[in-house]
This record gives sequence, C-alpha cells and structure tokens, in this order.
Amino acid sequence: MIVVMKPGASQQQIDHVIERIEQLGLRSHIIVGTERTVVAALGEKRDGAKQALETGDGVEKVVPILAPYKMASTEVKKERTCVKALGLSVGNRRIGVIAGPCSVEGRSQLLEIAQMLKEAGATGLRGGAFKPRTSPYSFQGMKEKGLELLAEARQQTGLAVVTEVMAPEHVPLVAKYADVLQVGARNMQNYPLLERVGEAGVPVLLKRGPSATMDEFLLAAEYILKMGNSQVMLCERGIRTFEDHTRFTLPLATVPYLHQTTHLPVVVDPSHGTGKASLVIAMARASVAAGADGLIVEVHQDPEKAISDGYQSLTPAAFREMMAECRKVAAAVGMEM
Amino acid sequence: MIVVMKPGASQQQIDHVIERIEQLGLRSHIIVGTERTVVAALGEKRDGAKQALETGDGVEKVVPILAPYKMASTEVKKERTCVKALGLSVGNRRIGVIAGPCSVEGRSQLLEIAQMLKEAGATGLRGGAFKPRTSPYSFQGMKEKGLELLAEARQQTGLAVVTEVMAPEHVPLVAKYADVLQVGARNMQNYPLLERVGEAGVPVLLKRGPSATMDEFLLAAEYILKMGNSQVMLCERGIRTFEDHTRFTLPLATVPYLHQTTHLPVVVDPSHGTGKASLVIAMARASVAAGADGLIVEVHQDPEKAISDGYQSLTPAAFREMMAECRKVAAAVGMEM
Amino acid sequence: MIVVMKPGASQQQIDHVIERIEQLGLRSHIIVGTERTVVAALGEKRDGAKQALETGDGVEKVVPILAPYKMASTEVKKERTCVKALGLSVGNRRIGVIAGPCSVEGRSQLLEIAQMLKEAGATGLRGGAFKPRTSPYSFQGMKEKGLELLAEARQQTGLAVVTEVMAPEHVPLVAKYADVLQVGARNMQNYPLLERVGEAGVPVLLKRGPSATMDEFLLAAEYILKMGNSQVMLCERGIRTFEDHTRFTLPLATVPYLHQTTHLPVVVDPSHGTGKASLVIAMARASVAAGADGLIVEVHQDPEKAISDGYQSLTPAAFREMMAECRKVAAAVGMEM
Amino acid sequence: MIVVMKPGASQQQIDHVIERIEQLGLRSHIIVGTERTVVAALGEKRDGAKQALETGDGVEKVVPILAPYKMASTEVKKERTCVKALGLSVGNRRIGVIAGPCSVEGRSQLLEIAQMLKEAGATGLRGGAFKPRTSPYSFQGMKEKGLELLAEARQQTGLAVVTEVMAPEHVPLVAKYADVLQVGARNMQNYPLLERVGEAGVPVLLKRGPSATMDEFLLAAEYILKMGNSQVMLCERGIRTFEDHTRFTLPLATVPYLHQTTHLPVVVDPSHGTGKASLVIAMARASVAAGADGLIVEVHQDPEKAISDGYQSLTPAAFREMMAECRKVAAAVGMEM
Repeated sequence: MIVVMKPGASQQQIDHVIERIEQLGLRSHIIVGTERTVVAALGEKRDGAKQALETGDGVEKVVPILAPYKMASTEVKKERTCVKALGLSVGNRRIGVIAGPCSVEGRSQLLEIAQMLKEAGATGLRGGAFKPRTSPYSFQGMKEKGLELLAEARQQTGLAVVTEVMAPEHVPLVAKYADVLQVGARNMQNYPLLERVGEAGVPVLLKRGPSATMDEFLLAAEYILKMGNSQVMLCERGIRTFEDHTRFTLPLATVPYLHQTTHLPVVVDPSHGTGKASLVIAMARASVAAGADGLIVEVHQDPEKAISDGYQSLTPAAFREMMAECRKVAAAVGMEM
Repeated sequence: MIVVMKPGASQQQIDHVIERIEQLGLRSHIIVGTERTVVAALGEKRDGAKQALETGDGVEKVVPILAPYKMASTEVKKERTCVKALGLSVGNRRIGVIAGPCSVEGRSQLLEIAQMLKEAGATGLRGGAFKPRTSPYSFQGMKEKGLELLAEARQQTGLAVVTEVMAPEHVPLVAKYADVLQVGARNMQNYPLLERVGEAGVPVLLKRGPSATMDEFLLAAEYILKMGNSQVMLCERGIRTFEDHTRFTLPLATVPYLHQTTHLPVVVDPSHGTGKASLVIAMARASVAAGADGLIVEVHQDPEKAISDGYQSLTPAAFREMMAECRKVAAAVGMEM
Repeated sequence: MIVVMKPGASQQQIDHVIERIEQLGLRSHIIVGTERTVVAALGEKRDGAKQALETGDGVEKVVPILAPYKMASTEVKKERTCVKALGLSVGNRRIGVIAGPCSVEGRSQLLEIAQMLKEAGATGLRGGAFKPRTSPYSFQGMKEKGLELLAEARQQTGLAVVTEVMAPEHVPLVAKYADVLQVGARNMQNYPLLERVGEAGVPVLLKRGPSATMDEFLLAAEYILKMGNSQVMLCERGIRTFEDHTRFTLPLATVPYLHQTTHLPVVVDPSHGTGKASLVIAMARASVAAGADGLIVEVHQDPEKAISDGYQSLTPAAFREMMAECRKVAAAVGMEM
Repeated sequence: MIVVMKPGASQQQIDHVIERIEQLGLRSHIIVGTERTVVAALGEKRDGAKQALETGDGVEKVVPILAPYKMASTEVKKERTCVKALGLSVGNRRIGVIAGPCSVEGRSQLLEIAQMLKEAGATGLRGGAFKPRTSPYSFQGMKEKGLELLAEARQQTGLAVVTEVMAPEHVPLVAKYADVLQVGARNMQNYPLLERVGEAGVPVLLKRGPSATMDEFLLAAEYILKMGNSQVMLCERGIRTFEDHTRFTLPLATVPYLHQTTHLPVVVDPSHGTGKASLVIAMARASVAAGADGLIVEVHQDPEKAISDGYQSLTPAAFREMMAECRKVAAAVGMEM
C-alpha cells in the first residue's frame, strides 16, 4: 500500500502513520517528494490495513497495490480452469452453450424445448424453478416441482441442468437436482448463499451484479473458492448505466480483462445483457469473438406466451440461427462450439 | 398500458395485439395516429401483461401507466407512516437519529459509544453483529455475541437497537435482540430475506441497493408490506455512478420524490452515501433540509482503530457538532430533532 | 404523445389538457381507464409539445410515441448509407479501417506509420492536429503544420485523412486538408460546430459523447444531415459508467441497435472504448462480429514514447495481428475487410 | 507518481522504467515489496509522464500523487474567491441567487419576470439568448435580440445578467451585454470556448458536464484561470446516472468536496439537477444546507407556456416560497441570502 500524505502534513502525522503501519505488522518506507510525502507499507496483508491507515490525520489517500483476491487470481493458479458438468464443458477453447426458458412453466413446455435445444447443439439447459422477481405480484416459480421437471429433461436429453438457487437454506434441495447451481445477479453479494453454494460440491455459475466492479465480482467468486469449490464460471450479464435503449449495458471488455486476471472461465448472457430478442444474436456473436468460454441464452417456444422474460427470449428458429452464426465466429477465433 | 405499434404495422398484427389484450382480461382501445397506431390496454392488471404484449410482432414498445407497487403508494394510503421503536420515532415531522459503530467490536467499545450517543441526542443505536463484507478475508462480525452486547447497550441507554440481518434463517435470532431489522443494500432484492423479515413483526430499515431504481426500491418494500408488516423505513444510502471522489453518489432528490410517491418515511445515510468522514456533516445537514425523516450515521470513539469503515466514521465530537448543526436546520424547515 | 393524468385528476384539468393539445395543432383522444385517464395527442409535431403538456396541472407524465429524429431514421430512408472517401469505404458490407497515432507528432513519425498501416490494410489514416486535452498543460497538437503532414501522408499512401476539428471557425481550414472531419466525443453536442461541419460538404465521423443516449446521438447527427450533408458515420467510443478496470465502457449492443434504427453506418473505436492496449484486439474482433461497418484504432511505432494516449495504442505488429484476426471474423459474418 | 510493476517483472523491465523516469526529468526511487516492486517518480511534472510510464513493459499501473490542476487548487490559493457582478455576490458567506426563464422569449415576458425576481430577492437574472438544444428542430434562441432585452432588464432592475455563450466566435458579442458568461454543461470541455471566455475579462459560470469527474471539472476551470480570469463560479447541475425518476442526478456532496479542494465558489442548479419543478424547492434548501455559495433556478410566469424547460420552471409564487425557505436554512448554517 502507498499512503499519500496531504501537502503540508506534519512530521508528527507522518510518524504516526509509520507507527500504525508497524502495528499492523507491515514494514514502512518513506519517500519525500517535492510537494508531498508518501509512505509505502510493505507486506502481504490485504485486508483492513488500507482503511486503518486512511483514517489517519494528514493522510490524503491510501492506494492498494495488491489485488484483494487471491485464489481467483492468475498469479496464484496459472492453468485455466475448465468447468465440466455432463456434456457441458466451459473453458479450454470449447464454448459451452446453456439455453432454455426463463422459467420452467410446465412439463410439456420444458421437455419439448429441451429436445429442440439439444438438437441445435446446446449442452446445458437453463430454466428457473425458484425465481427472484422484482415484484411480489409476479410468478415466483414452480419450486421443487420445477426441479423435478428439469431432472426429467436431463434424463431425456443429457443436457446439464443449470438452475438458480436463491436462499442458503434451499442449497441442498437445488443441488440434489442441478448439475450447475446458478447464483443470480441480485445475489452476487449474498455471502451466506455464496458460502453454502461453495460447500455444495457442485459447479457454480456466478452472475455479475449489475453494479459490481471486477474486484467485487472476483471477491464474490473468492467466497466460493475459499470453501473448496473451484468449479466456478463467471457470468457477465450486463451492468446498469444511463443507457435506455437496452435493459442493461453489456460490456464485453470484461471478457478479455477477466482472461488476463483470473483463471476462471467467462460466460456471457446476451439475453439479460440486452433485454431485447432482436439484439441477442449479434451480441452472442460478439461475445464469442471477444473470447467468451460460454453463452447462456433464453429460448422459448412461444416467447409471447412466456410467463417471464418473453421479450428477450429467442424462438427455437432464432436459436438455431444463433448457433450457426456463432459456430462460424468460433472457428474464426480458434474455438470449438 | 399503451402498446405502441411500429410504423407500418399490419392490420393483422394490430388485431393480434387486441386479441392478446383481451385474453389477458383487459379492455383494448385503438388510436390511429398520423404515423403510428397505438393500442391502449385498460384494466388493473399490473404484472406480466406488459411483457406478454411487448413480444408481439409489430409492437415497438409497451408503456406502463400504473405504478407497479400498490401498498407502498400514497394512492392507497394517504396518511404518512411513522415508524416507532422505543424512543426512536421516524416520520411525522420528528427526525430520528440512529448512530453507532459500523461493527460491534467489543463490550466496552459499544457501551461507551452508546452512552455518548444517547447524551448527544441519538434515539437509535446502529452496530453490525452479522457483517456482509466484500472480501471473505475481512472481519465478519461478532454474530450472536454482538447481538447480546447490543441488547445490553439498549438496557443501559434506552436506545433502540438497529442491526442488520443477512440470511433468512437468521431472522428469528436477530429479531430476538433487535428493535429494528436492517436489510442491507446488497440484500435489497434478496426476496426470501424480505419475506422473512416481513413476517417477523419488527420494524424494518430497508436500504436502497446501489443500482436500484425507485420502482425497484418500492417493490422491495412491497415484499415486506405484503407480509403484513407496515413499519418500514426506506433508507437512501447512495448509488453507484462514475463519480470517483466519493465512495457512492448520494442523490438527495430521492427524499422529496419518495415523499410524493409513498407514505413510508425516508432515512438518509450520509456515511455510506459519501464514504468520507469529512463530507458527512454537510450531507447530514443537506438531508435534513431536503426533508429526511431520519439519519443513520457511523460514529466510532477512535475511527482509526475501527475494524471496519473507520474512514467514514465520525468521532463523538464530530457527531455532537453534526447534531447541533442539524438541529438548527431542522428548526428552519419546521422539523424537530 | 400520450398524456397520463394523475389519479384523481379533475375534469377541469383534463379539459385544460385537451385545450392545450388543440392549441398546439394536434388532435386529442381521451381514454378513461380504471384508475387513471389518459389523453392521446395525435399529429406529427415532435418538438416542444411534450414539455408544454407535461407542465399542466394534474398531468403525471407525457410519453412520446414518435422518435425525435427524422432524417437519420430508417423510417425515412430505407437504403443504408455508405460513406466513401478515397479508398475508405464504410458500410455496405465493407469494413473500413481507420488507424494511426493519437496525435501527429512529426513528419517522419507520421509518414512511417502511415506506410506501415497502408501495407497492413488500413484505408483511412487518423491523427490529431488540433487536440482537445483535458488539461491545459497537455500538448495541444501541431495545428496547421499537423494538417500539412497528414496531407503529405495521404499523397504518399492514398489513405483517407480523418482528423478532428474542434472549433466552428477552424472548419474551413481543416476541411481543406481532411477527407473526413471528425467531431470528437466532447463536442457531440457542440451545435455551432455540427452545423458548420454539416455545411462543409466533407464526410463526417461523429463520435458519441460518453454520456449520450441513442436519441441524443442521432439528434446530433440530425444537425449535420439537416445542413445537407448525408455522409455521416456514427462512432461508438465508449460511455462513462462506474466500471474502473477500463477507461470507458464499450457497449457494443449499440451496433445492432443503430442498424435497426438508422441508415447511417457505425464505426467502433476500441482504443478509447477500453483505454488499454491489451484489450483492443479482442474488442476489435467483437466489434466486427457485432456488425460494425468500420473500426478506428490508435497505432504508434513506439507507444511508450507517444505524446498522448500511448497506453491504448497498438504497436504496428499488434495492428497487423488485429487485422489478421478481424479479417477472419469478418469473413465469418459475411463482411469484407 | 507511483509505478506499480506486475508480479514477476524482470530486473530489465524495472531498469527500463527507471531510465524512462530519469529521461522525463524526474527522480526515481525503488521499493521492493514482498510480492511486487514499486518505483516512485519524484518531481513536479504533472502531465504526460503518467502515460509515458504506464505503457512500459512489465508495468501494471501508474498512480498519480499530485492533483492535475494547480491554479484552481486550495494548495495554491488559500483565500476563497468571491465572484461579484453588480449586486450579485457569490462566495464569502453570501449566497447569490440567479433566477429567470430558460429562454428569453420576448420583451414583456422578460421585463415582467425580471421585476418579480428582483422583488423576491434575486441578484442575478438568467435567460438564454443563444440556446443549445438537443434537437435541431427546437427553438434556438432570440440571439442578439435576446441579449438586448437582457440588457434592458438589467437597466430596469439592476440584476446582473447571466447568459450562455455557445461558440468561441460569439464571445465578444455576448460579453458586450452579459455580466456573467455561462458555459453550458455540453460545452464544459469545449476548450476553444473556455480559452476565449478566459480572455474576455468577464466573470464566468462554468457548468459541470453531466459525466465529468471533479478532476475534469477543475481542469476545465483551469483553462479559464490560465488565461488570467479568476472570476469563475463552478456550477453543479446534475450528472447522468441510471436513475429515471429525475432528469439528472444531483449529487450535493460535490459542494463540500469542492470547498475542500478549490477556492472557487460553488453554485447549484436544482432546476436542471432534478428536471421537475416539484422537486426544486426541496433541493434548493438542501443545496444551501450543504454550503452552496449560490443558486441558479428557472422561473417562468406561466411554465406551461414556456418555450423551453417549462416542466422544471418554478412559478413566481413558488420562487418566493423557495426564497423564504432557503433564507431560513441559510440563517441556520450561518450564511446570508
């Protein structure tokens, strides 16, 4: 850490900072500049020290040098993580495609769409059984019945089931049916949930919160990794900005940035990332070109009749078109899909 | 709802929209404009209809007319809600002040600061026992031991205990000790938690998520109200924007906006809202002038030694100054504090 | 426009709105809903009417139905615009690549890099002679001398010169040398400049302001189109958000969105859009996959010694790599490059 | 500056950074930490060095220590600047109030409202003669005729005329009539305009761009100060965020932040900052409580008939109410108004 003193900070204030640094078990190193004094605090400590120091009198700011996460970092693990669940493989130059309806709505709907997706080349099946809904008056999901239908769809198609878990107490139940536990964007910083999911021993798809920085996103992954679960996929699904022509803003530079920063694979969700079916295929292509290790997209037989998110769901025909186009882009960037 | 058709939408597409509106139990009403056709859908239905319609062929967009929340609305309940817990009274032209350390760190720390706050005029005591921390390597709180200390501080001072609950399964435990349950910004859309908190029969302080719109904020409150708990305070604590000179951006126009929109009282948190102790007093004054019904601020005997959030904590002396200045502003706007 | 009345609006207030609509030369149409009354205002008027109506007593909001721009709209001109300047062709399934240094720094620097870019397949040469700089203490460009060097580089290579004009009074001078006038992001809403550029009869590259909505962006283009200049390229160069791992956030969904909305071609700037050389190639690939009609990138022989923007400049070798990779992606999406 | 090397940076890379630092005329100072090496670059150089260094191989990031602006800083000038123009005094514990219509619309409108404002206690008169409008189809102002009317209103009332100048070439004309030149939010980084305004020798009201950071805002002021004009007022008028219940988000923490950082006075514009007349009074009160040195508000005799911005204009009665309420708050915080 670098402690930047205010211009005109007194020697006593500087001495106090040095004393605090040493109390924190770090080594101090003073640099006297032309206009300001700077004190470096050397050591491995990542937590707490920054804020302890920035409260000191005469301190202007404290600049951290080390990344706050460890286990997620490429500095700690160089080889890239590949997440696998049945036929779904995400990472390692193979793009996994997870597709399905926003919500599980019924048996025939689910089994039919699962079959179509399988034929079109998906390897994972998404579908919400427990649904986080902005309004308490909206459909909240089929719950355990939905999970049973997902398991039945897996049995018929071999697709890996990817489904959301919303509460720590539901983790054992959802993990009984799911091949991948999804932590939704609203729950990215629901730490009791992250810890429970980390213990469950099932691969995890962790969605980025709509206002999370990369450090916060990687620290959320760190909660899961720390519990001993290293099968974590990071999912970019769009951020909240002032833009009003899309539901969220989908910032694809996170894909190459995360590839430089973490060994965990990166999945992109162009359905939530745009909120408009008419933009999904172009953004799926762009995601693949940016280097994404996976895609997760909403598909519904009849989007107009979907109970949720119909406006951003592809039809089966559009999904097949997306697959065809993305496969060409994948080949162009040396990936398989 | 107003369904705006694309220019050149066919009669068949328009007929289809009308049919869908009627299937949804709504009445339709066509308006043929010079460049576009618009179809109004009349009725009380708030949920699901919008998205069902906006997926239709030839539809450009669907504009909702009714607010998505009901019980939180001034349209449903005209008299303003006043939340009370022991001596803490928020709303009804009395400004409640909740103060205390970010985290409960130990017995003497807590009892000492509680006594100081009481003397300075606070009526609520904040202090985290269960702490949501961005990093898994940070201090996670004293848990139940912390709750016991808060209860002891209440006994000695009469201050109402306001403390965060992070997981649905902890609600009964925290509710046993707390006078007000705080739902943190990261959990604003943790629906299982909101429901459980709504059942607990204890007043709730609901913090705005850093990227939540007003509709999302009020719908989160609606989850609590719907369970029969009407003692809900809305807390503005800052949003995430591009600004980098403060930790969050504190948008005080939410105070008068919420007063026009909902009967629930509004509390402002200038500590998290700025993230810098040196800006807290000015923003506390501004909050009161904007009409806030309450303040929640972080205070620590020795901010430099605080385990968390020291950089945004006031000293006891600064808190007394804040109280003195805010009381003058409160008097100027016809409020008591 | 749709005028939504507040619940409980009086008949007198509704009558007043109707009267105002008619004074504005529009036709009114009342719809009485279960909870609110809505009044449609029919006609072609796009400007002023909205705000005149939303000030009325008892009015809650006014929702525009028509897009605020006309000439930029696909509704007015269906065939796509292709912008051409010497060998640079942007639109019509041919991707134009504009490359070069941030600033023109000297003769040998410029002629050398221009030659390299030409060989690598660029068709346009960028380079700032008049430089808008955040700090008054930064290098402000070589001005007319820089323009002369750009013209010399064009003569040697045949590359079309794309360079920024910052002030209305400089338009004639810059237009004397440039093949394409660039309006920078900071000047997207500099209307006197847009008008002058529109009169100059030279193709224009209009950069999106970092906080501009799509409507504002298209209205800025409309200022140019209205002066009779239809050779306008829209350039997405990143928006300002809370993200701190990139200099700006590059939202590629604007590419397909603009393709649905306007006939003007869309160029992407992955250099400013990320602010980090290490992310530029991946985002150039993604831009092409999203359907971009052109790319504009910063390239410098020795980025470390660049006077400006070195950290986001590609080396010539990296630029050749970008071209090779983007050509494969272009072929995969049916474009030529 | 602090140059943070990547983990595992080679000695050769470190040596290269040191060499570059010395070439830039700075002194270098190495700090070898447990995981990384850091090199401090000491000296006064503010510009260019940062980016020259951050392009180096093995460099992770460069952290500036010094603020990029000088003349605007409290470090350079400790005594606070008070801007004066006729009876308008902004700074020095006197709050100046600038009020008036968005646009000058005609003689009787302007003279009448100016008289009302004078009587209500305003000391400055705002009113646009040259209007920057998002749409080219909107009213663009009365131009010189409008300036003449403003001058006439000044003569009748003694109010100082505050009006916008949009193009460098118009500065002499506008300066002939105006007491304060306003640089609008869209032009905050229009550097040719800032320089010309700096030369004009007339006080300036500089509005913050809706996506400008504090450093960018102060550097824009620095462009004016550098030309020898020290009579600059900074105006906070709201930023662009995801919030959709107000037109912009008004972040009042900029007021105390700027008071700590610069000697220039700070004016708040609650009209543009909220975009809704019903929120203006509360935010004017909050601005005063936050310590604002001035207010600028839109007032119109008949907001419904205003040519522009009627929805955010106060009526004369509302303005008088605002003045009465703000005076009480001003007294409470030890200011005069």
